[in-house]
Amino acid sequence: MTTARYDVVAIGNAIVDVLAQADDAFIAQEGMTKGSMQLMFSPEDADALYAKMGPGQEVSGGSAANTVAGIAALGGKCGFIGQVADDELGEIFAHDIRSLGIRFDTAARSGDPSTARCLIFVTPDGQRTMNTFLGASQFLPEAALDRELIADGAILYLEGYLWDPEEPRAAMRAAIEVARKAGRKVAFTLSDVFCISRHGDDFRRLIADGLIDILFANENELTALARIDDFDAAVAGIAPQVTTLVATRSEKGAIAVSHGETVSVPAEPIERVVDTTGAGDLFAAGFLHGQAQGMNLAKSLKLGAICAGEIISHVGARPQCDMKALITERLG
Amino acid sequence: MTTARYDVVAIGNAIVDVLAQADDAFIAQEGMTKGSMQLMFSPEDADALYAKMGPGQEVSGGSAANTVAGIAALGGKCGFIGQVADDELGEIFAHDIRSLGIRFDTAARSGDPSTARCLIFVTPDGQRTMNTFLGASQFLPEAALDRELIADGAILYLEGYLWDPEEPRAAMRAAIEVARKAGRKVAFTLSDVFCISRHGDDFRRLIADGLIDILFANENELTALARIDDFDAAVAGIAPQVTTLVATRSEKGAIAVSHGETVSVPAEPIERVVDTTGAGDLFAAGFLHGQAQGMNLAKSLKLGAICAGEIISHVGARPQCDMKALITERLG
Repeated sequence: MTTARYDVVAIGNAIVDVLAQADDAFIAQEGMTKGSMQLMFSPEDADALYAKMGPGQEVSGGSAANTVAGIAALGGKCGFIGQVADDELGEIFAHDIRSLGIRFDTAARSGDPSTARCLIFVTPDGQRTMNTFLGASQFLPEAALDRELIADGAILYLEGYLWDPEEPRAAMRAAIEVARKAGRKVAFTLSDVFCISRHGDDFRRLIADGLIDILFANENELTALARIDDFDAAVAGIAPQVTTLVATRSEKGAIAVSHGETVSVPAEPIERVVDTTGAGDLFAAGFLHGQAQGMNLAKSLKLGAICAGEIISHVGARPQCDMKALITERLG
Repeated sequence: MTTARYDVVAIGNAIVDVLAQADDAFIAQEGMTKGSMQLMFSPEDADALYAKMGPGQEVSGGSAANTVAGIAALGGKCGFIGQVADDELGEIFAHDIRSLGIRFDTAARSGDPSTARCLIFVTPDGQRTMNTFLGASQFLPEAALDRELIADGAILYLEGYLWDPEEPRAAMRAAIEVARKAGRKVAFTLSDVFCISRHGDDFRRLIADGLIDILFANENELTALARIDDFDAAVAGIAPQVTTLVATRSEKGAIAVSHGETVSVPAEPIERVVDTTGAGDLFAAGFLHGQAQGMNLAKSLKLGAICAGEIISHVGARPQCDMKALITERLG
């Protein structure tokens, strides 16, 4: 096994987020489940919802893409694989990720549909409710995988969201094989409860087959995966099947379990929760960067909490401050 | 003269801003003049500069468009006329302005060039340096003017930036005539010193001909227009030629002169200047809204200062808080 030239190579949705303020009444009126993600299957549905939205801010997003953006901001070396269309939003996504020094070579896809967008309604409590039009992103073909890049990443990071469409699912299965053959670690985030309700059996099999080294989940996802209501019991059921389990618990902090050792970290104190978009993605960024840098579990968790704290203190899921300086200040 | 159904109808560039952080060394290295606006004449130049830019945030912009966005956020009724292309950035611009309740009917232009974009580099001191690719915006034809809308606005507001390209200049001259015939007021912002160096004689003639009721300028623009180095002397030279002169002076506040009366307002105290993009635009929004609501000079100026203070406390030139609540709190 040669030394990996990249810390983390991620495969995920290539999305531009459109963020706007909304009140709780609007979320209820539109029949959305606050705090969750739902898919919009047609461009017409996406247009209709966009028309009801207030003035927006566009910021590159995508769960795994946010994570590698965070790692790059911390100084890590990353690659990203994801499908954009040959349009202006695709150019924005590609620009933003490349401008962070992240290798991104997936060729843009011609014709319809357009680049994925996620309409995100941010309520006064800072909670985000997401509505995603996957567009081109759901057509990432296995042929688009840069196998050399994957084999060259110490950790392959995959998002559960992308398990939903057929082509990327096949691509991710192939990517896991490439990473395994190259002796690399595979990290996976369960992304959202709806992913588990649709693909829980796939996820349980991947885990049981020992293909996942680092598993990220929040409380709801973990209990859904374990099919147990109690959080601690769910941890006890899943942890032994993976090398490292990381469970995030919003304002209650997070825990990591690895080789029988359990460590926990409180949430970082922040002045005001402005927008929780990307909290889990940036937690994963901090944790993975810590692991790639050889930090222990506790320090990796702390790094995750600091990154999540930064991201929820402003609008958008990509870091806006000098993350290296922030980490030096907070981590010591 | 019938009662106007709109408070302000504006004609301006229809631009999407791309904002990113940069340090002073970058501004110097690229030969930019910090705090100013420069035009990029080819899409290749725009692409080359974009490639050097860090990860961005996209927010609708355009000077006069920002102003009507501000007035709409304050509760005023506005219309906007400006040229976008038939592309994704054009859709974003149109969505954002319409979502504020602003009437915007200018048909999108097919084919190249694309919708205008402004690459804005924000330095650590919060100062913004702008690089604009005018794209479709410079092709606003006189035929696109909605003359009924213009005649239905109590104030027609024009930006000096748009005086540069030929077609919009002709359109604005026609619009002034429509507004005058309908007995409406005409407000004009000088926008930038480069506009005066190119079109100062036009501006001086418009003013001397009594076509401008409300003139907005910052210190540099006013002295350039008056061709006098001293600010007070420039005010004394220009003020008698317009009904109302509003001169903004950054952290020194602003003054207004009307019918021989001079009033001034200090800058609003704010915690931290994050991004000065849109400060002048939102000052104009507050002042014009005050005037449209029948407030006196001093109160209109104060409203301008509060709006400018809000906009420089965050990234982007469109209001992000509940402006009506802010005004109630600050103006009493």
